[in-house]
Amino acid sequence: MDEDALRRLLSAVSDGEVHPDDAVARLRRLPFADLGFARVDHHRALRQGAPEVVYGPGKSPEQCAAIVGELLAGGTGPVVLSRADEAQRAAALAVDDSATVTGAGLATVVWRPSPPGSRRVVVVTAGTADLPVADECAATLAAWGIVARRLDDVGVAGLHRLLSSLDDVLDAEAVVVVAGMEGALASVVGGLVGVPVVAVPTSVGYGASLEGVTALLSMLASCASGVSVVGIDNGFGAACAISRLFRVTP
Amino acid sequence: MDEDALRRLLSAVSDGEVHPDDAVARLRRLPFADLGFARVDHHRALRQGAPEVVYGPGKSPEQCAAIVGELLAGGTGPVVLSRADEAQRAAALAVDDSATVTGAGLATVVWRPSPPGSRRVVVVTAGTADLPVADECAATLAAWGIVARRLDDVGVAGLHRLLSSLDDVLDAEAVVVVAGMEGALASVVGGLVGVPVVAVPTSVGYGASLEGVTALLSMLASCASGVSVVGIDNGFGAACAISRLFRVTP
Amino acid sequence: MDEDALRRLLSAVSDGEVHPDDAVARLRRLPFADLGFARVDHHRALRQGAPEVVYGPGKSPEQCAAIVGELLAGGTGPVVLSRADEAQRAAALAVDDSATVTGAGLATVVWRPSPPGSRRVVVVTAGTADLPVADECAATLAAWGIVARRLDDVGVAGLHRLLSSLDDVLDAEAVVVVAGMEGALASVVGGLVGVPVVAVPTSVGYGASLEGVTALLSMLASCASGVSVVGIDNGFGAACAISRLFRVTP
Amino acid sequence: MDEDALRRLLSAVSDGEVHPDDAVARLRRLPFADLGFARVDHHRALRQGAPEVVYGPGKSPEQCAAIVGELLAGGTGPVVLSRADEAQRAAALAVDDSATVTGAGLATVVWRPSPPGSRRVVVVTAGTADLPVADECAATLAAWGIVARRLDDVGVAGLHRLLSSLDDVLDAEAVVVVAGMEGALASVVGGLVGVPVVAVPTSVGYGASLEGVTALLSMLASCASGVSVVGIDNGFGAACAISRLFRVTP
Amino acid sequence: MDEDALRRLLSAVSDGEVHPDDAVARLRRLPFADLGFARVDHHRALRQGAPEVVYGPGKSPEQCAAIVGELLAGGTGPVVLSRADEAQRAAALAVDDSATVTGAGLATVVWRPSPPGSRRVVVVTAGTADLPVADECAATLAAWGIVARRLDDVGVAGLHRLLSSLDDVLDAEAVVVVAGMEGALASVVGGLVGVPVVAVPTSVGYGASLEGVTALLSMLASCASGVSVVGIDNGFGAACAISRLFRVTP
Amino acid sequence: MDEDALRRLLSAVSDGEVHPDDAVARLRRLPFADLGFARVDHHRALRQGAPEVVYGPGKSPEQCAAIVGELLAGGTGPVVLSRADEAQRAAALAVDDSATVTGAGLATVVWRPSPPGSRRVVVVTAGTADLPVADECAATLAAWGIVARRLDDVGVAGLHRLLSSLDDVLDAEAVVVVAGMEGALASVVGGLVGVPVVAVPTSVGYGASLEGVTALLSMLASCASGVSVVGIDNGFGAACAISRLFRVTP
Amino acid sequence: MDEDALRRLLSAVSDGEVHPDDAVARLRRLPFADLGFARVDHHRALRQGAPEVVYGPGKSPEQCAAIVGELLAGGTGPVVLSRADEAQRAAALAVDDSATVTGAGLATVVWRPSPPGSRRVVVVTAGTADLPVADECAATLAAWGIVARRLDDVGVAGLHRLLSSLDDVLDAEAVVVVAGMEGALASVVGGLVGVPVVAVPTSVGYGASLEGVTALLSMLASCASGVSVVGIDNGFGAACAISRLFRVTP
Amino acid sequence: MDEDALRRLLSAVSDGEVHPDDAVARLRRLPFADLGFARVDHHRALRQGAPEVVYGPGKSPEQCAAIVGELLAGGTGPVVLSRADEAQRAAALAVDDSATVTGAGLATVVWRPSPPGSRRVVVVTAGTADLPVADECAATLAAWGIVARRLDDVGVAGLHRLLSSLDDVLDAEAVVVVAGMEGALASVVGGLVGVPVVAVPTSVGYGASLEGVTALLSMLASCASGVSVVGIDNGFGAACAISRLFRVTP
Repeated sequence: MDEDALRRLLSAVSDGEVHPDDAVARLRRLPFADLGFARVDHHRALRQGAPEVVYGPGKSPEQCAAIVGELLAGGTGPVVLSRADEAQRAAALAVDDSATVTGAGLATVVWRPSPPGSRRVVVVTAGTADLPVADECAATLAAWGIVARRLDDVGVAGLHRLLSSLDDVLDAEAVVVVAGMEGALASVVGGLVGVPVVAVPTSVGYGASLEGVTALLSMLASCASGVSVVGIDNGFGAACAISRLFRVTP
Repeated sequence: MDEDALRRLLSAVSDGEVHPDDAVARLRRLPFADLGFARVDHHRALRQGAPEVVYGPGKSPEQCAAIVGELLAGGTGPVVLSRADEAQRAAALAVDDSATVTGAGLATVVWRPSPPGSRRVVVVTAGTADLPVADECAATLAAWGIVARRLDDVGVAGLHRLLSSLDDVLDAEAVVVVAGMEGALASVVGGLVGVPVVAVPTSVGYGASLEGVTALLSMLASCASGVSVVGIDNGFGAACAISRLFRVTP
Repeated sequence: MDEDALRRLLSAVSDGEVHPDDAVARLRRLPFADLGFARVDHHRALRQGAPEVVYGPGKSPEQCAAIVGELLAGGTGPVVLSRADEAQRAAALAVDDSATVTGAGLATVVWRPSPPGSRRVVVVTAGTADLPVADECAATLAAWGIVARRLDDVGVAGLHRLLSSLDDVLDAEAVVVVAGMEGALASVVGGLVGVPVVAVPTSVGYGASLEGVTALLSMLASCASGVSVVGIDNGFGAACAISRLFRVTP
Repeated sequence: MDEDALRRLLSAVSDGEVHPDDAVARLRRLPFADLGFARVDHHRALRQGAPEVVYGPGKSPEQCAAIVGELLAGGTGPVVLSRADEAQRAAALAVDDSATVTGAGLATVVWRPSPPGSRRVVVVTAGTADLPVADECAATLAAWGIVARRLDDVGVAGLHRLLSSLDDVLDAEAVVVVAGMEGALASVVGGLVGVPVVAVPTSVGYGASLEGVTALLSMLASCASGVSVVGIDNGFGAACAISRLFRVTP
Repeated sequence: MDEDALRRLLSAVSDGEVHPDDAVARLRRLPFADLGFARVDHHRALRQGAPEVVYGPGKSPEQCAAIVGELLAGGTGPVVLSRADEAQRAAALAVDDSATVTGAGLATVVWRPSPPGSRRVVVVTAGTADLPVADECAATLAAWGIVARRLDDVGVAGLHRLLSSLDDVLDAEAVVVVAGMEGALASVVGGLVGVPVVAVPTSVGYGASLEGVTALLSMLASCASGVSVVGIDNGFGAACAISRLFRVTP
Repeated sequence: MDEDALRRLLSAVSDGEVHPDDAVARLRRLPFADLGFARVDHHRALRQGAPEVVYGPGKSPEQCAAIVGELLAGGTGPVVLSRADEAQRAAALAVDDSATVTGAGLATVVWRPSPPGSRRVVVVTAGTADLPVADECAATLAAWGIVARRLDDVGVAGLHRLLSSLDDVLDAEAVVVVAGMEGALASVVGGLVGVPVVAVPTSVGYGASLEGVTALLSMLASCASGVSVVGIDNGFGAACAISRLFRVTP
Repeated sequence: MDEDALRRLLSAVSDGEVHPDDAVARLRRLPFADLGFARVDHHRALRQGAPEVVYGPGKSPEQCAAIVGELLAGGTGPVVLSRADEAQRAAALAVDDSATVTGAGLATVVWRPSPPGSRRVVVVTAGTADLPVADECAATLAAWGIVARRLDDVGVAGLHRLLSSLDDVLDAEAVVVVAGMEGALASVVGGLVGVPVVAVPTSVGYGASLEGVTALLSMLASCASGVSVVGIDNGFGAACAISRLFRVTP
Repeated sequence: MDEDALRRLLSAVSDGEVHPDDAVARLRRLPFADLGFARVDHHRALRQGAPEVVYGPGKSPEQCAAIVGELLAGGTGPVVLSRADEAQRAAALAVDDSATVTGAGLATVVWRPSPPGSRRVVVVTAGTADLPVADECAATLAAWGIVARRLDDVGVAGLHRLLSSLDDVLDAEAVVVVAGMEGALASVVGGLVGVPVVAVPTSVGYGASLEGVTALLSMLASCASGVSVVGIDNGFGAACAISRLFRVTP
């Protein structure tokens, strides 16, 4: 039951065509009933302020293309296709090739990004191998119009590298820390700044890195209080967490 | 907004006191709005056919007593206080001492059980140490009026023990298998009968039993297809799964 | 010793050709003795009401073909070849090509499915990527004549999607919930309905999803009591659990 | 070398008393040298906008009292003693008994909280047993002057409980979700709101809850993008993450 | 149906009182039917050559006493009460106090041990802290009349300690290796001797010992081929494995 | 220093050419000194009664060929090349092609097997997919002249399959149980027979099978006492454990 | 066979009383034979340069006292009783009360420490709660005459604390880093200094700290190359690793 | 700000061109400020005495080549490219082909190694399959001029192999133990020598080896005190740990 149907029902009650008791019967399961949410995604995007996002893995290229096409047709805001493989990208770009593509294996594709704003977000990586995850984060942020400053390869084994860019970090409104191996960078950054720090463990490293679990646990157990964490390699999730942040104060 | 309020609103529309558009405005967020669910638990109990259940751990004795008192006052069906420690039991029984108490450390307390029915459920245990979990399961089933037949200490190390009671097992409409250590009994029972088998891993055993994780994994990986599993030591959950079963065919 | 042999032995006793003591000697280890169970699988299928199922992985294409051929020849009911790769399918279909094949990589092949019945089972998936597991479940159910209603892509991140189809869910006699990532859908569905809910964790997701372990644990620890769980990606097992359900009340 | 010493050195250079080369020699290891950071904690509190926090576990009552005393003497802002046991609390309160104490076993003690502000933060719990963690979170927030609205016992097994308070949730600037067992509440809330959601897994539950690990993994793998997570039972950490949030937009 | 009943049935067939077809009907489910296994444990003990063993944990003192009493009354061989706590021991010894008790916390109680034989079994421990597990093993072996030679505190950190007793080890017919920490002793002993080596990991050690899991994994992954392993701290199980060994060649 | 060198030294002492004190000096570190163990493997093979075994993985084809060649040249007993891939097999067979090869991917290659003996060993598998591991076990046993009886596909989901071959199992001097999934077969067999049971968990199964870990844990936690376990998929190790067994009583 | 026995044998050969062949027979198993190693511990202490160490856990007070007494009587160097509980300490001090005792619950007791040397070792802790582990390390080092400089509570959440003491760290010949939670301090220190860094993870922290496992993994996966790690809470082990270091260059 | 800039600033102060207060302003955040660390790696290499090391994984061939080129141009000491795949090696060797390459899949490439010194380091492996890790270790050591003696295939299953080379081990200044499977060799070597032992667990083995985790845990839990451990397969890290060792005593 969508709003029009609701309006018709109530008009019918108003007109005496439907008895209030019958309307009650039809409405009383409403808390869990169908309000015609075919339009729901657009509505939700509006409510959450988020761009439409399609998560690629597990979808066929055709499915990706169809969903992207529908989203582009149904709204005017940004549309993101996340973690898309080559076939998925090809299919989706065939629908509309005006997108930017970030990444090689699994890429982030963005249509109609919001215009660049003035938010000061820094995305910090511990090492060169963490770059793809940071790229995913930055590309997703760009869809929201957030142009992240990048600070790469500043892992704690050479502390001076981070310290020498301290001004950028101290000036940020929010920091994303992308780090594999032992993920210690999150703690160090968390101790330096007072603004929100979202930590992204990466599967970079080998042996005791346990494909990112060590960095994940390390970040969760961080001695720098108030660092919050998203899943392993989840640059996309970190971008979403950052975007939520700025909805507090539009 | 509860049903009465809804009725009043609709009557007002019917009477022309409220314009349909205004009613739409008030109703349109209903899918997630408050319908006055103070009565919700009773409604839900009715809808699910489940007794009211209060999960003890983490609640103060006073909280337990208050909730049990409210549930007893608000309905006429069975009420269960699950995993209650001694203080919680004392507080709740002070409200109404007409309950049956099953178990020693953490007990199951049942008020106003449904009258015994004719469902044929067998609760099988692998060893004597699994009895408390099976007791919890049986006590919870009794609240629904399901009188479980018990078949204890029939672990697979002495297969004849199970086989000698095979008729009971084959005659059941559903079987709960409670087993710790390696949990192999679930697979054996699952292979013998065609009716639903709910497996409950227990934390019985030591060393490689990993406090029930081994039995849990073993049951999930069972070679007997169609065995489904609840959490470790969760006799209560198994009883709930069984009770759901009989709602299919009232 | 099969039934005929048993009959001959007893006739010989009856005829005085065999002394009772000698018969005792031959029979007394019978609890563990051979009754000529070459026909056992057919007998068991009969007793359990289950179709004949061949689990593909680890079997050579020739073995698959031979077993399927024997099952088709030896009975008249449904025969299922589960998780068959392309070579296994080819070999089995060469024996009898009247089967339906569901799935791409590892497929479910069904010969002689039972005619569609009227059971109301809903198979719910959290996301598009969970579809192959749900397909396996539905294809296996179809072998039993259970035509599952599908409700796809209704994960809890957009609760309205589930709520808008609530009637279907509330009307079901049993629900299978297929979900990866954090598997929260099982708890939500389990809280909404009172009928049996079988949860299937899937290996969908990455990072902290731990290839399905997170969803598995989440479902086992569900706050919705009475949800039971099968192994990761085990759509087949969920179908078997559902089929057991309906043997209670034929 | 503190600022005064630096000034003296440079004055000496300016006065010709010290040759620039000698000054270089003394200064060139400055990036890692001591600038007289005895005042550092106060400075850092200022920079980060955080109250002074003393983490209790592992400190003797005497150490707790001494540190709290020093912090109270050295500043005028809020001081928090976190996770203090009874002896630690007694010792610290003996220094200054004007504090509020929240919690029973391990308590949060707050001196000189900031005056209540107008930030709209909601702390949601799945069940009664999650309350102590939520209390720790709220007590810590209160030190910053953030008065959290509480929404307790709204776990997803009874979705209506959450939905009936949806307005509060939708109105919040940030939400903390505290949940044990399978932690599904974080995903549901994350899907409903667009503002920052900090999820706190708790060790509530048993068996497959793995003392909070299941909820932790579940929250990290959440299908609701942009939910970020802190450590198990870490209500304090969630409060810190929330407080960082509001430093972005003072 | 026990042997007598079977005999009576067959006599009835022989006498023409029962038709062979009726006997078939009664007998054909025999593979899983009851043969009157009230005597089963004695029969099984006979068949397996094992003493009667009662596993203490999870049983009430009364249950322990009753089972031990029944076993002592019903046979003439050894009876073992394993892992009995103080109350269980007291209750069981009240039935018959002619037992030997080994161990302090959880003890092994043996009635009517077999007379000492000439089997050459060596039980080797890595450190003093492994002694209780080795004691349990030796006490259980003694019930079978196997007098184990003990070789204690010969861990690989001081290889000479083992090497200096090499003759004893080389002379053994079987070796039990009891070791915690990293369990390396199993590999070293396994490499030195050609006879069966049963390794028992113990929960001795801390940190990375993971309460015995490290030793367990280490022994399973041993580079000395043919070492087999029982569960953590399972001295009883190792004794059982050894006793099985000597049933091959009575 | 090999035996010849030792003899020469002692002859020199005997002849007065070397003073006893000098000989002491050269001999006194002997416990850790070099006795010229270039021939050590032959000596060890002799002492342990084991065939020469070369473990393939991680060795180059050339290394495999060289070691096999040396072993064949240096002795007359059986030589086994274990887990050899195709290139390793080709290289080793080029040295001496009189071997039997068992297995496809990683194969067991045996030269000069001992003549078949009369030991009665049964190798039991739970399912068809466990066959490769059982084959490795049997092929290795064959090198020692142990002709294992095979009992395949008798998993506990269809208990009758095992029971119908009970005589073979009861007649065995030792049983190897090869099972994946939940590994319950080991417990069932362990409960039926009194002789040594060596359990081999396999990586067969998926989801909660955890690539063999579930079966491994299950076997270690078996309720059938005295079952001992080797590593996952380690058919070779089980064969070695069995072979050790028969060295006790030649 | 000890050295005297060896001398007598060789003298007998020299005197013609024993034939060289007979001596060969007796000597040829020498590589693994008994050389009378009753004196071995003293010899080993000498060879390794280590003090005599008795590991307390699992030993009775009497055993502790006896071993300590024997070591004190048999040598003149330092003797350490590690991780001794109160009863063990009392018993050992009753033998000789001239020891220093460090720690409260489980203490380190040192008799006859080596005189303080000039080695420059720094023991760094991340937080106050890590002190007991650092104390154990320092107390053990003191037995070797190594007086460690302590640098406490310099965790990376407040980097300035470490940096302000950088000179001490840079001046050290070796550094022990003791840290719980996420253990990031090891990486930071490892990146700052070029000398050996031994990292000790502690079980300090909660939730995702996993009782030290997170710090352990973090240190093993450290991005600062060449940091080596000992077990959780193993301050004793770190002291031993440091002491080994200085044996390279006496 | 690099040293030159610093010098210029101070000269300006000295010349009265810059007021000391202004210089203070520019210098006072120096502890965290930028000193123009473009040359930092050279400086750090100098301070730590380590060669320049480039970690290959995650870098593009072009990045590897650029960094190696810069390092070769900017200094005169050794340069190491670690874990480089074929494309990375090709790119880097195109810059300067005077390097030695060790390893096949992921190789260690060394330019301008230090001249061979006289340090006595032994790298011990348990089995042939551990050789690649040992090779990586030795190749990295060679960059520092440390020529490691190799002792391969001396795993504890054949203890004599190690014992027969005992002199080499006892003569070493430091030992690296490289072992997979159960990693017992580290404990045995740790017990034999008093010098530093760095243990490297390898992912060699299968089943219970858990891809190196078993060896890792085993080494951490070693009963030989003072053995320190690096990550799985981390031959490079072990070399770094050894190189740190020799910086203590130049």
